[in-house]
Amino acid sequence: MRRFLFSQAKRSVLDQTRRQHHTSRRFLSFLPSLSPHLPAPAPPLLSLSRFLSSTSKMSASDSTSSLPVTLDSINPKVLKCEYAVRGEIVNIAQKLQEDLKSNKDAYPFDEIIYCNIGNPQSLGQLPIKYFREVLALCDNTSLLDESETHGLFSTDSIDRAWKILDQIPGRATGAYSHSQGIKGLRDTIAAGIEARDGFPANPNDIFLTDGASPAVTIKAKTFCVMVHMMMQLLLSSEKDGILCPIPQYPLYSASIALHGGSLVPYYLDEATGWGLEISDLKKQLEEARSKGISVRALVVINPGNPTGQVLAEENQRDIVDFCKEEGLVLLADEVYQENVYVPDKKFHSFKKVARSLGYGEKDLALVSFQSVSKGYYGECGKRGGYMEVTGFTSDVREQIYKVASVNLCSNISGQILASLVMSPPKPGDDSYDSYMAERDGILSSMAKRAKTLEEALNNLEGVTCNRAEGAMYLFPRINLSKKAIEAAEAAKTQPDAFYCKRILNATGIVVVPGSGFGQVPGTWHFRCTILPQEDKIPAIVNRLTEFHKSFMDEFRD
Amino acid sequence: MRRFLFSQAKRSVLDQTRRQHHTSRRFLSFLPSLSPHLPAPAPPLLSLSRFLSSTSKMSASDSTSSLPVTLDSINPKVLKCEYAVRGEIVNIAQKLQEDLKSNKDAYPFDEIIYCNIGNPQSLGQLPIKYFREVLALCDNTSLLDESETHGLFSTDSIDRAWKILDQIPGRATGAYSHSQGIKGLRDTIAAGIEARDGFPANPNDIFLTDGASPAVTIKAKTFCVMVHMMMQLLLSSEKDGILCPIPQYPLYSASIALHGGSLVPYYLDEATGWGLEISDLKKQLEEARSKGISVRALVVINPGNPTGQVLAEENQRDIVDFCKEEGLVLLADEVYQENVYVPDKKFHSFKKVARSLGYGEKDLALVSFQSVSKGYYGECGKRGGYMEVTGFTSDVREQIYKVASVNLCSNISGQILASLVMSPPKPGDDSYDSYMAERDGILSSMAKRAKTLEEALNNLEGVTCNRAEGAMYLFPRINLSKKAIEAAEAAKTQPDAFYCKRILNATGIVVVPGSGFGQVPGTWHFRCTILPQEDKIPAIVNRLTEFHKSFMDEFRD
Repeated sequence: MRRFLFSQAKRSVLDQTRRQHHTSRRFLSFLPSLSPHLPAPAPPLLSLSRFLSSTSKMSASDSTSSLPVTLDSINPKVLKCEYAVRGEIVNIAQKLQEDLKSNKDAYPFDEIIYCNIGNPQSLGQLPIKYFREVLALCDNTSLLDESETHGLFSTDSIDRAWKILDQIPGRATGAYSHSQGIKGLRDTIAAGIEARDGFPANPNDIFLTDGASPAVTIKAKTFCVMVHMMMQLLLSSEKDGILCPIPQYPLYSASIALHGGSLVPYYLDEATGWGLEISDLKKQLEEARSKGISVRALVVINPGNPTGQVLAEENQRDIVDFCKEEGLVLLADEVYQENVYVPDKKFHSFKKVARSLGYGEKDLALVSFQSVSKGYYGECGKRGGYMEVTGFTSDVREQIYKVASVNLCSNISGQILASLVMSPPKPGDDSYDSYMAERDGILSSMAKRAKTLEEALNNLEGVTCNRAEGAMYLFPRINLSKKAIEAAEAAKTQPDAFYCKRILNATGIVVVPGSGFGQVPGTWHFRCTILPQEDKIPAIVNRLTEFHKSFMDEFRD
Repeated sequence: MRRFLFSQAKRSVLDQTRRQHHTSRRFLSFLPSLSPHLPAPAPPLLSLSRFLSSTSKMSASDSTSSLPVTLDSINPKVLKCEYAVRGEIVNIAQKLQEDLKSNKDAYPFDEIIYCNIGNPQSLGQLPIKYFREVLALCDNTSLLDESETHGLFSTDSIDRAWKILDQIPGRATGAYSHSQGIKGLRDTIAAGIEARDGFPANPNDIFLTDGASPAVTIKAKTFCVMVHMMMQLLLSSEKDGILCPIPQYPLYSASIALHGGSLVPYYLDEATGWGLEISDLKKQLEEARSKGISVRALVVINPGNPTGQVLAEENQRDIVDFCKEEGLVLLADEVYQENVYVPDKKFHSFKKVARSLGYGEKDLALVSFQSVSKGYYGECGKRGGYMEVTGFTSDVREQIYKVASVNLCSNISGQILASLVMSPPKPGDDSYDSYMAERDGILSSMAKRAKTLEEALNNLEGVTCNRAEGAMYLFPRINLSKKAIEAAEAAKTQPDAFYCKRILNATGIVVVPGSGFGQVPGTWHFRCTILPQEDKIPAIVNRLTEFHKSFMDEFRD
């Protein structure tokens, strides 16, 4: 039965594939400046929803129905939307996962391992106990009146819950909050930023958000809506441009396209560990200006996604000076600030670097993004994050506040968690020792996994991989043979997507093709998270190694 | 000091008021078909963010700064955005609340009472204990291993937490979930819908969401993003129209405008308790079609917002037949389904009505919206809700799924809560009696408050108010004198906004002018929630009565 539905679904998707193929050029307009480097990924072969819906009462081909809505009568933008940010690979993987339940023997693997997205707890990472204790007490405040609670919860989690409840008007954790987030929690976050940087932070500069993703951006990022807000603020037409790294997390290209601006790409240098060259920034800026584009801002992702590099402080100083000199807003994606794995690198916030250089409120417009989905806590399901907005006049800030008041719907638990990650237990607190053990255990394990995977990848024929200094990803380069590239073309797919699909079908491991992030034309990469638990890493390495060997043998020129 | 800053802030806002006034006509294009009936609200007099920012280091007038972003260099749409959905009244109220802290004697009231938004827990309503127990156990799962937990939690909340955790892959409450929401929770919701309606529901038709609000819609609604998704799907150009009630919750007008479609208004009949006349629907539909507009869907809000009526079942049958005959998608806003206060009315879901008429999957395209922010639970801060999507072919459903996968970032607590409200404790469960006592206590109190306020309003000179059969609001009509209307014109504001501002300044009570919802031209209303706790109601009635009397005396023709 399932097999029949599966082939039926496959047929109808192939029709759709043909139908959508000719629209792919129009899709390119989503990534204006990128389009030469970022060909449109092929449409999905088979998505989970089709698989599910094909098992439901009605089939796509049902023509007897008198329903008002058909594929031809819906918004064509919807048909085209979002291929830039969600690939067919995940759809195939979800379908395989469904099918594995009934057809275990049909596949050379017994589980799908999702290395495509930074979703640590889905792969077995446990939440930090202290954070969850405080959330539980704030959810069920009646616990605070019970003596047994002291046996069940750490004393500092109880104290913290009381402190937080006193910061919430009427202790109403079930009420809508101030559009910027609960003031007391913003005070805590500002204090945490001060402790991190050694420079003052203003609670009125903090905008708390949850995981709202505007259309055509990526649900995985809790700060989508903040990026979306800043793009909405800065971009009035295609004459406004934003400098973005290539490779980049495609949220930025999608959000810039959504707001009708121009993406001005600058390349990270793979040869120098994905280094950021100021000279290249200048070159791209001047080129864009010569085309009449007014460049409004520079996006920097540090630690890098998908590239995993951690910027050197001198490099950050040059970036700050560059933004100051050129009058650019610095949009600092710092959501991986806790994820640094190498002793020779350290995270420095751009705000700290700017203040160290003597730049204050009136000198530099800087927005820093932080999220509870990343770090060692990896609380993706809680949907919390904040942005710190500095260097804007009060009248512009009022406009940011206005956009926030319609964009942000921050769930209170997410707000509380954002305040907790910025002020975790301190020496002497009841939870401190266990908290530190959890934290260091997670981070050192991530470092170990990053190193193991990086070495394994570098051992593969024709594969080179920079180390993951930070973040959660490796972005290896694959040297694909002429024969492999021709096979991909014959399959109407990108060579790196072709390779990634082969990985999935041979190993059950899900990785994302580099063409979704942008790469130097003619080079091919994929992004792989370091998040599978340690006991799974050896098997992953073996499967990847075996697969790659057979792939190279099959397609050797 | 505060006084100085306040007057300084006031000055700069007055400048902004002038600057923005000439843009109000362009703003009207946000509400295409509505514009004749819905004049643009005046720009805000003073917002909290300005008040806050005016207390921060830098002032708007600071010209010495070298910052790159100025009001003239930001997206003009941002300057214009969102006045349709956030009024100046709330901004003034927030400012007053700040100022009250230091200048208690300067005002004839000692607190601001927010009757402008359905935010029950902010006004003292307590959360339902059982729901919060389950959320706490899912947040801090280690509690489930402790024997003391049995003394602290009801046994059914513990059982439920185990059941939910078993439904979450890897029990990972901190992981991103399936884009449609966790399957097991959707199973529970589908079962709850079946129990409510007596007709089958399919978990694959359920889309869980949290409170994500796209720009230019309203943060207060957890289902904004779902409405936004359906509008995105149905509207390709201004040639596509949506039938919407007037008065209406302006989410719909804003979302239609955002997606470039046309709003086709139909009027609710105040004289018959905000009745919905099929004859008027037909008239508006034909008129729109004669203008070349292809009408795609009908929005019905039941129980009504801001109007509070509950539709009679016969009326619902006619609406279903109308949609079936005319080939319209029925978008049913049913978020107040638990809030019915009169013995002679009962909530019936449109799905139940359609199925009772024998219409199945192939006959009617129907989307029902539900939210955890409303009902007797009023969990606005938790950001949970779902939509049930029926009567779409599987290929169209795949497109809805695709949009969901980029739009929905449902926080897990919100998803869990949505499943809980659709399957609360049952007879025999440990929590059942206390749960029912909480639930009935809240609903009977709301009914009492609605009645008291309705009677008080009807006792006011020149005021008529239909009863609140359901939802959380009263929408009284005020018969304003020629003199009052002239005074409003002189103050460059809508007559109903003028009246509401006077209420706020005289009593500290915040209500929303009818012009924000749409009303028959020449009639004036305001929306007032029934949510202040019972002990506050007498004072509110006295203050409103006193104010209204002096207002009428001041402006009697």
